[in-house]
Amino acid sequence: MNFKLLGKIIGKIMILEGILMLAPLAVSIIYRESVAHVLAFIIPTVILAAIGTALQFLKPERSSLYQKEGFALVALVWIIMTLFGALPFVINRDIPNYIDACFEIMSGFTTTGASIIVDITAMSHSTLFWRSFSHWIGGMGILAFVLIFIPESKDGSSMHLLRAESPGPQVGKIVSKMKLTTGILYLIYFGLTVAEFTILMLDAPIPGYESEKVFFSMLATFGCAGTGGFGFLPGSMELYSPFSQYVMATFLYFFGINFGLYYLILIGKLRDVIRSEEFKTYLLIVVVSVSLIFVSLYFRLGNMTGSYTAEEAFRHAYFQVASIMTTAGFTTADYNLWPMLAKTLLVALAFVGGMAGSTAGGMKTSRLVIAVKGAYINVRKLINPRYVPKAKIEGKTLEEDTINSVFSFITLYFFIIIATLIVLSVDPINGQTVVISSEAGVGEYEVTHGFFTNFSAAVSCISNVGPGFEAVGPYASYALYNPISKIFLTLLMLTGRLEILPVLILFNHRTWKKI
Amino acid sequence: MNFKLLGKIIGKIMILEGILMLAPLAVSIIYRESVAHVLAFIIPTVILAAIGTALQFLKPERSSLYQKEGFALVALVWIIMTLFGALPFVINRDIPNYIDACFEIMSGFTTTGASIIVDITAMSHSTLFWRSFSHWIGGMGILAFVLIFIPESKDGSSMHLLRAESPGPQVGKIVSKMKLTTGILYLIYFGLTVAEFTILMLDAPIPGYESEKVFFSMLATFGCAGTGGFGFLPGSMELYSPFSQYVMATFLYFFGINFGLYYLILIGKLRDVIRSEEFKTYLLIVVVSVSLIFVSLYFRLGNMTGSYTAEEAFRHAYFQVASIMTTAGFTTADYNLWPMLAKTLLVALAFVGGMAGSTAGGMKTSRLVIAVKGAYINVRKLINPRYVPKAKIEGKTLEEDTINSVFSFITLYFFIIIATLIVLSVDPINGQTVVISSEAGVGEYEVTHGFFTNFSAAVSCISNVGPGFEAVGPYASYALYNPISKIFLTLLMLTGRLEILPVLILFNHRTWKKI
Repeated sequence: MNFKLLGKIIGKIMILEGILMLAPLAVSIIYRESVAHVLAFIIPTVILAAIGTALQFLKPERSSLYQKEGFALVALVWIIMTLFGALPFVINRDIPNYIDACFEIMSGFTTTGASIIVDITAMSHSTLFWRSFSHWIGGMGILAFVLIFIPESKDGSSMHLLRAESPGPQVGKIVSKMKLTTGILYLIYFGLTVAEFTILMLDAPIPGYESEKVFFSMLATFGCAGTGGFGFLPGSMELYSPFSQYVMATFLYFFGINFGLYYLILIGKLRDVIRSEEFKTYLLIVVVSVSLIFVSLYFRLGNMTGSYTAEEAFRHAYFQVASIMTTAGFTTADYNLWPMLAKTLLVALAFVGGMAGSTAGGMKTSRLVIAVKGAYINVRKLINPRYVPKAKIEGKTLEEDTINSVFSFITLYFFIIIATLIVLSVDPINGQTVVISSEAGVGEYEVTHGFFTNFSAAVSCISNVGPGFEAVGPYASYALYNPISKIFLTLLMLTGRLEILPVLILFNHRTWKKI
Repeated sequence: MNFKLLGKIIGKIMILEGILMLAPLAVSIIYRESVAHVLAFIIPTVILAAIGTALQFLKPERSSLYQKEGFALVALVWIIMTLFGALPFVINRDIPNYIDACFEIMSGFTTTGASIIVDITAMSHSTLFWRSFSHWIGGMGILAFVLIFIPESKDGSSMHLLRAESPGPQVGKIVSKMKLTTGILYLIYFGLTVAEFTILMLDAPIPGYESEKVFFSMLATFGCAGTGGFGFLPGSMELYSPFSQYVMATFLYFFGINFGLYYLILIGKLRDVIRSEEFKTYLLIVVVSVSLIFVSLYFRLGNMTGSYTAEEAFRHAYFQVASIMTTAGFTTADYNLWPMLAKTLLVALAFVGGMAGSTAGGMKTSRLVIAVKGAYINVRKLINPRYVPKAKIEGKTLEEDTINSVFSFITLYFFIIIATLIVLSVDPINGQTVVISSEAGVGEYEVTHGFFTNFSAAVSCISNVGPGFEAVGPYASYALYNPISKIFLTLLMLTGRLEILPVLILFNHRTWKKI
């Protein structure tokens, strides 16, 4: 273990986090918040800067990282970012409990959007800003900063990090000249962010919140860009106008697309984009899901509370598919009250997630494509033992190794969900009745914290969606879980965001042995 | 496609099914049932014999089967057995609806034990016998008959069939001299069956059912041996004495063990049994699950209706773990009312199932062992790229191909469950309130047919367990699902029993092309 180099890199990340906290600090000052609120960002910044600077005095003997060190570093960086990123909430008493605060900011950085806040209207501007801003930071990947700070090396150290942190089974064609490419991808990210913010600003302000227009447009954009989904109004995005809801949903679809495809468009290879199987699958899933949910909502298939006009049914279907599939987790309606078909499809979408190389979570569309092809190959081989598979993906031969690693990933994904169910089942909240106060006009109703609550919480956290169903549904929160469940779910969000292996490596004792 | 040979073999199976129906026919006559009940078995027997005999006039050009033909044949045989095996229920009006009858008998042959019968006390003796007898037949595998009837060939035709029908990832060491081995395995099966029947006969009869002692002991033994689990009394096994409940649970554990291990004991290789990793894992899972469920029941961890003495808590835990893990599905208590930890563990056990090469369903303990080892190897490889895996299982090198096929199987298993959830979610029963009438003294209570109902139904059917939770729980039935859901679940039970691939091959158009 190259502890000194690890320490030095972590120190740089800490300094960076301190710098990032200047943004919510500015918000706090602009809105003339109390001294406690201002100090809430000054104190952590000073601590981060002090420790971070001190760590720069380390003199590593070796300037490169082994693969395992890269993986462990990435997992460690996210945990440290979380441990310090939670401090402001505790200091300004918006979230007095440190475990809750860690849950909240990990949910932010991992772009999950699961929240333990019961009354969002009681939060200060600076808290709301730091939460949503963490989505935007997390969406970029702390990778960027790691890449920027790591000494360029020829042995592929940075490559390991990219592998550890980039979502999806393949890094893609565009990994050479990494710093340049990363730069281009971030330009796209910034560009889309600015575009969404600008379009949202064209809409009339939300009635009753006229003075918050700029602030809310920023938060909404951060949440969409990172596909995070922290709400900042009662009822998530319910109070927004249909126009804004369509805009946000559309941008969510954009942010759920592999950023490499935008790069291909930029360099004029539009044909490759249209031919991309992952892209076609993504579109197909969207069209089928929106259609089925629209039909089930409009024609009230099954047991359902309330009814919608055709436009409302379409809008809610379009928005909710965008929000769950890209694993953002914003809501425009209480889907707890929807027919079972709509609910089940949303669960399935949470599993799949967005495209690899996007800011979305989940198993990723590309893994679905590869798994289906792999299963088909296995059947073909049994039908005809002399069958030689020549499956392709994105024009390249689909290697057996790729298929196998996808199968292995999906198996682990499900095993972890089952393990989570067992951990959550010990929580005393199970079986309790929870009152849901829905703003959708349905009023209050009761749900039991049951199996579906835990199941949806597990899927939602590992897939970085945010809200689940029943007692962790769109109008509820994770507040009622006990601290052990919360800590477990916090690590689960990280496990999902880093696609499992880095976290397993961090907690494996062999990682910490000398080579 | 060697249609003529397929037809000939299917014909033999049909004749055999006709012969097997003579047993319930005898029961019907012994109990002096109505003419309709006697005819219910005579008519199908005649039809089966007639078609089966006619098919023997086919003259196949080729006396062997290709692998794909073997797989397709196995799936086809089970479907045909079901289509004809359902006839008696329809003719004697015990289950007037043909789709329901097919569901019931497929559930029998696949040793699932899921039932659509609402009032079990209204069933005739011959119906009860045919249901439970089908478990015992299914437990043996129709394989036996296929093997007996297929012309011995050197090209491995029979091998294909064995592969298609035997549960678990590996056939094991003892596949050579197949007919001999099969014979020995069946002797063990018979021996255990006789032993359980004899011990159950030692117990006092169930109060109120004194005259049925022999009959019920037979049915209980059939259900345990095949790990099927059809109940024949109100409340499944609740009315049995604690002694009988312990006996049944213990035999269930026996029937959930790889039959190859008994063979090893018989030839004096006890050491290999004790060293078997699958066996150790099986024991470990049993001990941990029984302990945790005992603790949660006795100390009433979480929201729970009713309370148990230490003996009751232990007995119910011991019985229910046996019943769900070996995927029988008998019950001694309404586990719907248990704490969430107990419920969640039962769901997890239903996934895992028993050992490969037993009569149990589920993913199989051996696959769990292999998947965990495979995942560990993947982590080790990332920690140290020069790591050369030398994992072993049961003393033999664990090949990468084996690991990959296990990952691929588990992925398919979960994908099929998610697909099932979507199909079931369209059913109008979703969201309806169902009244559960529990004999356990808790009286009536209401449950909503919700996500957990569908989820547990899907897991229960693919793993061949039988009962699920909520509206398909131990004191409810599958009767309320609509016909489409029932047909889908019927095929799902078959898919689980044949471990997915044969069914996929049967429904693949390439299978039916000429080679």
